[in-house]
Amino acid sequence: MALMKTTFKPGRKIRLGRIDPRADSGLDKKAALDRAARDREVISELAYRLYAEGKRALLIVLQGMDTSGKDGVIRHVVGAVNPQSCTVCPFKQPTAEELAHDFLWRIHRQAPRLGHVAIFNRSHYEEVLVVRVHKLAPEKVWRGRYEIINQFEQSLRDAGVTILKFFLHISKAEQKERLVSRLADPDKRWKFSKFDLAERALWDDYQEAYEDALTRCNTDIAPWHVIPADRKWHRDLLIGSIIRKTLEKMNPQFPPPPPGIEKLKVT
Amino acid sequence: MALMKTTFKPGRKIRLGRIDPRADSGLDKKAALDRAARDREVISELAYRLYAEGKRALLIVLQGMDTSGKDGVIRHVVGAVNPQSCTVCPFKQPTAEELAHDFLWRIHRQAPRLGHVAIFNRSHYEEVLVVRVHKLAPEKVWRGRYEIINQFEQSLRDAGVTILKFFLHISKAEQKERLVSRLADPDKRWKFSKFDLAERALWDDYQEAYEDALTRCNTDIAPWHVIPADRKWHRDLLIGSIIRKTLEKMNPQFPPPPPGIEKLKVT
Repeated sequence: MALMKTTFKPGRKIRLGRIDPRADSGLDKKAALDRAARDREVISELAYRLYAEGKRALLIVLQGMDTSGKDGVIRHVVGAVNPQSCTVCPFKQPTAEELAHDFLWRIHRQAPRLGHVAIFNRSHYEEVLVVRVHKLAPEKVWRGRYEIINQFEQSLRDAGVTILKFFLHISKAEQKERLVSRLADPDKRWKFSKFDLAERALWDDYQEAYEDALTRCNTDIAPWHVIPADRKWHRDLLIGSIIRKTLEKMNPQFPPPPPGIEKLKVT
Repeated sequence: MALMKTTFKPGRKIRLGRIDPRADSGLDKKAALDRAARDREVISELAYRLYAEGKRALLIVLQGMDTSGKDGVIRHVVGAVNPQSCTVCPFKQPTAEELAHDFLWRIHRQAPRLGHVAIFNRSHYEEVLVVRVHKLAPEKVWRGRYEIINQFEQSLRDAGVTILKFFLHISKAEQKERLVSRLADPDKRWKFSKFDLAERALWDDYQEAYEDALTRCNTDIAPWHVIPADRKWHRDLLIGSIIRKTLEKMNPQFPPPPPGIEKLKVT
């Protein structure tokens, strides 16, 4: 069964209010979990070939409000990739050293090397999201960043990096449930931060900032995928399926044998 | 059923010739695979708690001759750890930048941060192995490194890092089989390097260098484990079992709730 479409025509305004966070592609959970498990096996195999080939890379950007499931996606989908060729880069509040540089400095050094898969847990997009909502930079500065980001992504693309950007789209009601459960469960409580409630209070500002970021940085070479994320199993299925299709399209190959290999003899 | 012992009393000479690379702890493959799968689940859960706790770290050092299975261990055992808190560091031939520093410089910056698991695929031990066998440094220099390494590991330990060091012990005959199969299989041939045969010709020198390194850096706080590695399933079972027991002994805990959390209300 076909999964829902997650991309939008570059140049057209992306309106989050029109996308249902509870969408499920008409699937049931059991069938989705089976399908996701098969996708993971294919991802694992193709990521291994990508590593062997060593000529191209995959960058996966994860963005979304607190509790939208970035950590869950990493654990349940990305875990399929051999850790030897997979790096997860969490971008937290910048350090003093990072703040003493331009906004892409800390991002750029985490770009995946050829053959590898890098996952950005939050990313350079925070610089047009949290920075905008909390007015950490003048509007002129953060507005200029959309095009800086587009050109940065173009440069990665030119160097052989395929870019997948996922916005995990949850509803405000679902976030409430998840925060309440986080507070109640001793095994989850450690993930709760005192900032979570303050950020939640700025929900509408963030949705607006996201709509602009998604729209302005939705390019042919690095389109945004909006992933309904209220149902975790559908979220994981969609993302796994997109990663699988992307790797299938890249079609990485084991390298040809080194010249003269047929004459070698192991003694 | 008890698995074989893999450690040796610090101070006593470790003699590789007395350890059978084909040892299997008297187990059969089917039972071993089942047991290893259960170990992986426990490792996954405990590594997650270690991450949540954020106060201690685990460093896993993998050493062994070519084809001894370092990559396989990473793929089949370490893959159990959530990639968000797991970093694999392959130490290949040093770059010009790395050579322009002391030998621990590139190693030190890969030390695991608290809460994380780092896997060194080869390590600082190459500096008393390949460097010794190929005479890349004077004897006086590499001999001095044993104690430098011991103190370096002590410093990591003091900072909350538990260290597991595994030497994957294969026989020369098994290496021959694996190299031959690498040359024959189009999906494996890319792993073959023209240096592999030259290194194999130095087998005895490497075994001697390994015996000294294992003996001199076999400390109470960072003991070496010699892992018979001719049988892949037994190798993976042993290593998984040791990682599991180590994490169980560390017994990481989810952090206590932040103060005042019971008064918070999600609106």
